[in-house]
Amino acid sequence: MLSPSIAARPGKFDAWQAARLLARRELSAVDLARACLERVAQRDCEVQAFAHVDPDAVLAQARARAVDAGPLHSLLLGVKDLFDTVDAPTAYGSPIYAGHRPAADAAAVALCRAAGALVLGKTVTTEFTYFHRGATRNPRHPDHTPGGSSSGSAAAVADRRLPLALDTQTAGSSIRPAAYCGVVAYKPSRGRVPRAGVKSLSETLDAIGGFGRSVRDVALPGAVLAGNARLLDLPALGAAPRIGLCRTPRWPMADDDTARAWDQDHTTLAPQAAALTDVEPPADLPDLVALQKAVMAFEMSRALSHDRLVHRPRPSGRLQAFLDEGAAIPGTEHPAHLAATAAAQRRVDTLFDEIEVLLAPSATGEAPAGLAATGDPLFCRGWTLLGLPCIHLPFTQGRLGLLAGLQVVGRWGQDHPLLAAAQWTHERLIR
Amino acid sequence: MLSPSIAARPGKFDAWQAARLLARRELSAVDLARACLERVAQRDCEVQAFAHVDPDAVLAQARARAVDAGPLHSLLLGVKDLFDTVDAPTAYGSPIYAGHRPAADAAAVALCRAAGALVLGKTVTTEFTYFHRGATRNPRHPDHTPGGSSSGSAAAVADRRLPLALDTQTAGSSIRPAAYCGVVAYKPSRGRVPRAGVKSLSETLDAIGGFGRSVRDVALPGAVLAGNARLLDLPALGAAPRIGLCRTPRWPMADDDTARAWDQDHTTLAPQAAALTDVEPPADLPDLVALQKAVMAFEMSRALSHDRLVHRPRPSGRLQAFLDEGAAIPGTEHPAHLAATAAAQRRVDTLFDEIEVLLAPSATGEAPAGLAATGDPLFCRGWTLLGLPCIHLPFTQGRLGLLAGLQVVGRWGQDHPLLAAAQWTHERLIR
Repeated sequence: MLSPSIAARPGKFDAWQAARLLARRELSAVDLARACLERVAQRDCEVQAFAHVDPDAVLAQARARAVDAGPLHSLLLGVKDLFDTVDAPTAYGSPIYAGHRPAADAAAVALCRAAGALVLGKTVTTEFTYFHRGATRNPRHPDHTPGGSSSGSAAAVADRRLPLALDTQTAGSSIRPAAYCGVVAYKPSRGRVPRAGVKSLSETLDAIGGFGRSVRDVALPGAVLAGNARLLDLPALGAAPRIGLCRTPRWPMADDDTARAWDQDHTTLAPQAAALTDVEPPADLPDLVALQKAVMAFEMSRALSHDRLVHRPRPSGRLQAFLDEGAAIPGTEHPAHLAATAAAQRRVDTLFDEIEVLLAPSATGEAPAGLAATGDPLFCRGWTLLGLPCIHLPFTQGRLGLLAGLQVVGRWGQDHPLLAAAQWTHERLIR
Repeated sequence: MLSPSIAARPGKFDAWQAARLLARRELSAVDLARACLERVAQRDCEVQAFAHVDPDAVLAQARARAVDAGPLHSLLLGVKDLFDTVDAPTAYGSPIYAGHRPAADAAAVALCRAAGALVLGKTVTTEFTYFHRGATRNPRHPDHTPGGSSSGSAAAVADRRLPLALDTQTAGSSIRPAAYCGVVAYKPSRGRVPRAGVKSLSETLDAIGGFGRSVRDVALPGAVLAGNARLLDLPALGAAPRIGLCRTPRWPMADDDTARAWDQDHTTLAPQAAALTDVEPPADLPDLVALQKAVMAFEMSRALSHDRLVHRPRPSGRLQAFLDEGAAIPGTEHPAHLAATAAAQRRVDTLFDEIEVLLAPSATGEAPAGLAATGDPLFCRGWTLLGLPCIHLPFTQGRLGLLAGLQVVGRWGQDHPLLAAAQWTHERLIR
């Protein structure tokens, strides 16, 4: 049924290809699960992407799996340990919740399971998604950070342990690890994916997304999470999009690798795109990075009230300092910050009257050396604040041989055109 | 320390008065707790407002209470059983979660406890806040519904079991039971109160609020939940507000009691308000009631995915039918509904250029007879969809001797002017 070469290298095909093989019964759920589990067993000592894996339970689920359960068939899914799961401990990256067993699956997990996904395991998150390091290493360069907070999900997909993984982003927790590990990340438009059962950090900012190895891959969980099958309909030969290049005001923080990726991008796409123009953010826009930081600090200090107030001093020093900083922001300022955000959303929305997507930097550069920190989410903060859909595309190599790339940013609610434009762009950049 | 008359009638004074007596040490936390618990013991067999009370634990907390812990001092607080609590079972009104013990307090509960509140017990909610009846009766008329879904919180405050209770509103679950039971309800502006640890039903709609017996009362938890002490600063002699009267397009559904309250309102306020004008909703506004229903059905079916898909058929028939209806809405429609909501918010916001608050009906009439249903949230759906802050003011009696009243609706983010205007209005209406 399964050729030895496929069994030995489950990562040789991406989620979309695996789904097709599973549907045709050219690959069985059990063989795919076994191959993924073997890869985990071989590799996880080094990379430490997983917080919990129960191989027997995964195989039992794979054996019980009906064919054609839904668009995720019997695809193996990694789930960031910020999502509640009934059948695995859920610790949110904090010793406070070690061994915690939630009473229900998070809505996103329940939707993916109902669509046929098999949860392979829980992946490492940093402590409550903040910058305190998790155990995970960058699978391409073990002395470098995989980024955070969705460290385990990004590393597991990059290391071909499984085809898909769920993640979250509050500042840059999806796009940044995708950039550092070299996978595709899709963060949908705000409000389209239910967050029930995911540890809440910031109601304004928290977004659920998915990692995969291609744009078509990330459209699979994207369609399931948004309840929108149309997202799966990505033509192989899409029309050339109108693209805006948006360096953002923090461009001076980008290093040479990012600048080179940017130039490569321009050189490759200019002759092919329907339009490729530089886009300047409106001059009257507030500093979105500062605004995002203020909203995140205030909301996170309040969402984590129980942990901050009752479990002190168990949250780590850096997190506790951040939460205290947020708790000191006067409550009178928060409505003004939310109103400024809404005004900025309306202002930025008009940019999309002329173009379909923006290209923007994903990270300041390649994954930094060392594991004590997870890198800077600088280039993600603004897009997260605005709630716009974003897709990271890995396509080039930096000085260290790690992948670099850029993110494609869409208009709010226009996730299908974004996915189509991202696929068009990625196909051209990785040629 | 405590006079016998006070001990026998803890409900004789409202939260604000009790807070003052506690601060002056003219009333002890233990005596107040004991008096409330006695009232619960006497009355809860009939009214059934509570899902869980542990008197020994409440008294132990009262004994351990430091003076001046915060603005909620040692006030007894009822908590709707939709909020997670570490020290009491949390069932969300569903047999699926009977005996469930959460790992953390909801953020709102943690904030209230940190501000000095003592949780007296968990109050009854309908099943996942939907219309399936809870056990609670209307304390003023036991054969009538207390309204829902915050049935227990409204009944407990109305029946003077405790001074304050937390509630939530997704359609009309705060304002409607407040109207039926005759208490004040305050639903803050969207986005100002963290919802972490409250069972999520609709991310767009769910709002946390509080019940009390006066506007100053509900400002107490309001200030704590929003982290905004300014909300406590309500002058006794506030300036006369500019008021708009907004019957809404569903006015023909209002019965004679509501019409009489409306006329009384107009007669009383017209000579005193700085302005009192009829306000028509903009003609180009979509049907907000239909829009709210569509958003709620889609989001609730997805937020409750685990319960809907895994625990079927344990959700009751009526809820399951509603969730199935929501699950059948194409995911492509939801972004359009959210965009229409955002456009309506901007349109309605301009009404507040001329006036400070709107007065609007709270319910179609007095609490309906019977306990099988919890009444119609018709007059709340639109304001909930728009995320505007609302305060219900009870002030007159209908044909059955139950209280009727109206809601005061404020501009988004203008909660302090709303509270001040509501206090001004209430003082004049209850004279």
